Amino acid sequence: MELKTINYKAVLKDIYQTVVSEENNGTVATYIPELAKVSADNFGACFLSTEHEEHGIGDWQKKFSIQSISKVLSLSLAYKILGDRIWDRVGVEPSGTSFNSLVQLESDHGIPRNPFINAGAIVICDILVSELKNPKEDFLTYVREISNCDQIQFSETVAKSEASVGYRNKALCNYIKSFGNITNHPEQVLDFYFNMCSIEMTCQELSKTFMFLANTNFNIKGENVLSISKTKRINAIMQTCGFYDESGEFSFRVGLPGKSGVGGGIVAVHPGRYCITVWSPKLNEKGNSYRGMKFLESFTTVTELSIF
Amino acid sequence: MELKTINYKAVLKDIYQTVVSEENNGTVATYIPELAKVSADNFGACFLSTEHEEHGIGDWQKKFSIQSISKVLSLSLAYKILGDRIWDRVGVEPSGTSFNSLVQLESDHGIPRNPFINAGAIVICDILVSELKNPKEDFLTYVREISNCDQIQFSETVAKSEASVGYRNKALCNYIKSFGNITNHPEQVLDFYFNMCSIEMTCQELSKTFMFLANTNFNIKGENVLSISKTKRINAIMQTCGFYDESGEFSFRVGLPGKSGVGGGIVAVHPGRYCITVWSPKLNEKGNSYRGMKFLESFTTVTELSIF
Amino acid sequence: MELKTINYKAVLKDIYQTVVSEENNGTVATYIPELAKVSADNFGACFLSTEHEEHGIGDWQKKFSIQSISKVLSLSLAYKILGDRIWDRVGVEPSGTSFNSLVQLESDHGIPRNPFINAGAIVICDILVSELKNPKEDFLTYVREISNCDQIQFSETVAKSEASVGYRNKALCNYIKSFGNITNHPEQVLDFYFNMCSIEMTCQELSKTFMFLANTNFNIKGENVLSISKTKRINAIMQTCGFYDESGEFSFRVGLPGKSGVGGGIVAVHPGRYCITVWSPKLNEKGNSYRGMKFLESFTTVTELSIF
Amino acid sequence: MELKTINYKAVLKDIYQTVVSEENNGTVATYIPELAKVSADNFGACFLSTEHEEHGIGDWQKKFSIQSISKVLSLSLAYKILGDRIWDRVGVEPSGTSFNSLVQLESDHGIPRNPFINAGAIVICDILVSELKNPKEDFLTYVREISNCDQIQFSETVAKSEASVGYRNKALCNYIKSFGNITNHPEQVLDFYFNMCSIEMTCQELSKTFMFLANTNFNIKGENVLSISKTKRINAIMQTCGFYDESGEFSFRVGLPGKSGVGGGIVAVHPGRYCITVWSPKLNEKGNSYRGMKFLESFTTVTELSIF
Repeated sequence: MELKTINYKAVLKDIYQTVVSEENNGTVATYIPELAKVSADNFGACFLSTEHEEHGIGDWQKKFSIQSISKVLSLSLAYKILGDRIWDRVGVEPSGTSFNSLVQLESDHGIPRNPFINAGAIVICDILVSELKNPKEDFLTYVREISNCDQIQFSETVAKSEASVGYRNKALCNYIKSFGNITNHPEQVLDFYFNMCSIEMTCQELSKTFMFLANTNFNIKGENVLSISKTKRINAIMQTCGFYDESGEFSFRVGLPGKSGVGGGIVAVHPGRYCITVWSPKLNEKGNSYRGMKFLESFTTVTELSIF
Repeated sequence: MELKTINYKAVLKDIYQTVVSEENNGTVATYIPELAKVSADNFGACFLSTEHEEHGIGDWQKKFSIQSISKVLSLSLAYKILGDRIWDRVGVEPSGTSFNSLVQLESDHGIPRNPFINAGAIVICDILVSELKNPKEDFLTYVREISNCDQIQFSETVAKSEASVGYRNKALCNYIKSFGNITNHPEQVLDFYFNMCSIEMTCQELSKTFMFLANTNFNIKGENVLSISKTKRINAIMQTCGFYDESGEFSFRVGLPGKSGVGGGIVAVHPGRYCITVWSPKLNEKGNSYRGMKFLESFTTVTELSIF
Repeated sequence: MELKTINYKAVLKDIYQTVVSEENNGTVATYIPELAKVSADNFGACFLSTEHEEHGIGDWQKKFSIQSISKVLSLSLAYKILGDRIWDRVGVEPSGTSFNSLVQLESDHGIPRNPFINAGAIVICDILVSELKNPKEDFLTYVREISNCDQIQFSETVAKSEASVGYRNKALCNYIKSFGNITNHPEQVLDFYFNMCSIEMTCQELSKTFMFLANTNFNIKGENVLSISKTKRINAIMQTCGFYDESGEFSFRVGLPGKSGVGGGIVAVHPGRYCITVWSPKLNEKGNSYRGMKFLESFTTVTELSIF
Repeated sequence: MELKTINYKAVLKDIYQTVVSEENNGTVATYIPELAKVSADNFGACFLSTEHEEHGIGDWQKKFSIQSISKVLSLSLAYKILGDRIWDRVGVEPSGTSFNSLVQLESDHGIPRNPFINAGAIVICDILVSELKNPKEDFLTYVREISNCDQIQFSETVAKSEASVGYRNKALCNYIKSFGNITNHPEQVLDFYFNMCSIEMTCQELSKTFMFLANTNFNIKGENVLSISKTKRINAIMQTCGFYDESGEFSFRVGLPGKSGVGGGIVAVHPGRYCITVWSPKLNEKGNSYRGMKFLESFTTVTELSIF
């Protein structure tokens, strides 16, 4: 199998121009009041290969709220610290339900199906709150380290905005605690969770950050983050669970492990080859970026490079 | 990224000997009376690379009932014939439930979540019954062609055995028909379904048959079966939905698209590289081969070759 | 507590005239083709006291398809024959779901919640098919005896019509059989079920038939049908489960045990006092007669006679 | 229909002695730490007829935590204040699920099935918190008035005990708020809810309190509490929903409207005739008093007095 020589810069530009010329469907997430203020016209993408070839287009250097994309980072840190013991408290199966569903928790006795639905991410946050000395600070330090970007910050405004309306997540956290699968105080766990989700990055920073999953066990700085086995497993979970009840659709259309956030960002990883981030705030009805999905589908179709 | 030179023959042998020396947990499927008669000691595997390197071990040339593995073949034929129109009648999302669940059909109005749970496979069978002139014969011809194995047959005994007890599948078929998503008579659709599942193959034959998915768009004979895009999409669905409510687990532990059957067979595909089939009749509680899962997990761990 | 002297004839007339002067909302059941042919304008009622005071109005002597109302009769016969052993195979709890739902059967392992949802009625039919020598004939004889109406018949046309489209019921029966809670062949059980549902009666005949539940343990002929305890229990089940997922609403608005059918009939029983039947084919969205509900609500409101 | 002359005092004594001589199965509720301290041997009952005939036996004058029985009182007050507008926010259908289930709320968009499951009771509490000037004080005043018992109190200890572990109820309240069906702050609503449930009464006091439902529209003091129609409707809801997923069973075995609490109390009402309260702390697996169910079943069987 030989790799075709692809002019990624040109591919990116072509797709960007096509997508931007078409309808921008969907709606900006409004359930977090602060997110509703973001302009729907933002649109950017950043390609970064494992050989440090980097191409950006559009609003690729503008910060946005990464939201659920952060769940991959918290998972990787918890996995790094506790190893396979984390799987006693959260599963690795796609849920077949929406991101904030409480339904399965009842039959599953408080063990969330996977770490990327809200329920599972909250359990991972509980683990980090227990394991880290200064949870929020230490988590931010970890993210800055693997990304080699010192400017990454929480957005206090977004975190507060979500906290003020986050009744569903409060329900989830208390519900899981009623089954004994949350050890800390719900308020403390949710404070960490809302802050974690409020992290702001650019497409460029996200591609750098996720390089540790593309480049198997080395991050952008050439440092080991996770073992090969752990790295592959996180990619596997992104593949099956990264897009809530549209995970199958993303796998089907794009064919890469990835993770989306309600801020409109999507990161996708081609193990051994590249990492690509796209951002456009309007979401389809499943809560994933409308233009983001379209962009990435075109990208793997044109390059004929997916993991399948 | 360069490929390590791997002595597949030796790897296969090592893993085989390790697994065979360990406990053989689980239970042979008994719900189809005929399958219950198969010896639990059968154990074989066949590796076949896209460059025609072939290695077999154990009972790799013994026929067994491929059961649900056949669902990939019927899907590929229906997809070939009707194209993307098939997705109006069946989804591509993991179900999060067991293989024969009826629950989601109610809320999903008779559209099965994916073509690999029984409900979805039955809808695909309905499509083939409508589209093929002599459904059973034509399907067998297709399977023989893509595998280049003229000796592949239905097992009338197994088909009858399953028909005699297949109340759950009769329920599924009638239920879907009540929503209007089955066009033919349920008896006719189920006759096709039970026969399709009864196909018997060896590990060697299965690896050959699935080569059209490993070798992107060429089968073992070097013939085009499906377009690149369709091929990738079938692999994507195997990845997210191939193992019922253990699909995430398989993706997590093995990291390859694959499909299992209650006969104890599992086929896994590394696109562009190889196809591997393993067979051992004892199933874990999710209905997937206990030794098969173990064998494949070891294989991708040792070779460090998964899609992630 | 003394009973007010009520002019039932006048009350009936008043309510009838009011209801008939108002909008006739809802839709005639169309899922059984034969039922769709019935005129939506039919409207009749029959009051029958335990002291043999009888008043009819409108189309009270016109035959209609009693459909699910028959489930009370099959239950009473099975209860009479087998006693409390029937509760091993069917529960007495309201289901909280629609009449033909399959969802709960999965978690309840094939034990239907109560004998008045389709699943439960099918299990009761299975019992009768096992226990009766000539199931259909013997059941008809039983109904004729307790009602003292020799002219009661199945409608072969309606039975065949439902059989031709009864995929949901076929699904239910096969599904329950897959759990082992159907002992006979599904075809045989469903043939009995479809015939049972096809029974045709007038409002007058239904009031006579159900007198054994109003008059505690004597039927219209003064004969013992069931013990006091069994009679009370059937009334209790009608109270909590007689109207599918509108059982609470009926209890709330009308306050009597009762049973509805998709033919538009409703029978309600005031134990110790009277039986009242109303018929109007247009159904509300829960599948219960729109005018029937209204008529009975007015009746218990005006007379201030409900069991509460 | 004439009423038999029944020696209620003797009936009570006989049943009490029989039940007390038999095994005391089940377990005292432990999820509220404070309730776990109550002796399992407590057992008392109080019969009170609409003609002021009163008989008590055993621990009938000992205070216990009425818990969910209080939900009938809060419902009656909210119904009195707001009338039928309350049904926009809570249904009247049995849920078919356990008392603290969150599952149906998702499909029902935050409208609880009925006011007696926790979800529904919390919505009623939200209404009272909005409508009452001093919610807790005013509610207590109302309960004291309808019961004519000035000594009725909240148990601060029990309220605090439940608040300290009430994660499931916190989950429910936040979940419903996420659908917009809670208007006040969850903390405030739950403070009211936990206090309301903590009310302590004796069997005698409970029978007096519930007399307004037995005596149609007059309470023990001969004062009008609710209209006839409202009174009947509350009885109807108790009949279909008073015992969670054992409501059908209670209706079937006892045949009276009633309400249970996890403190081991059960109140049942025979409209127009009597009110009966029984208390024994050990609960069956559905959360209803084991001896209480037995006692009441014997009572309506022996007296042949149920509403059916």
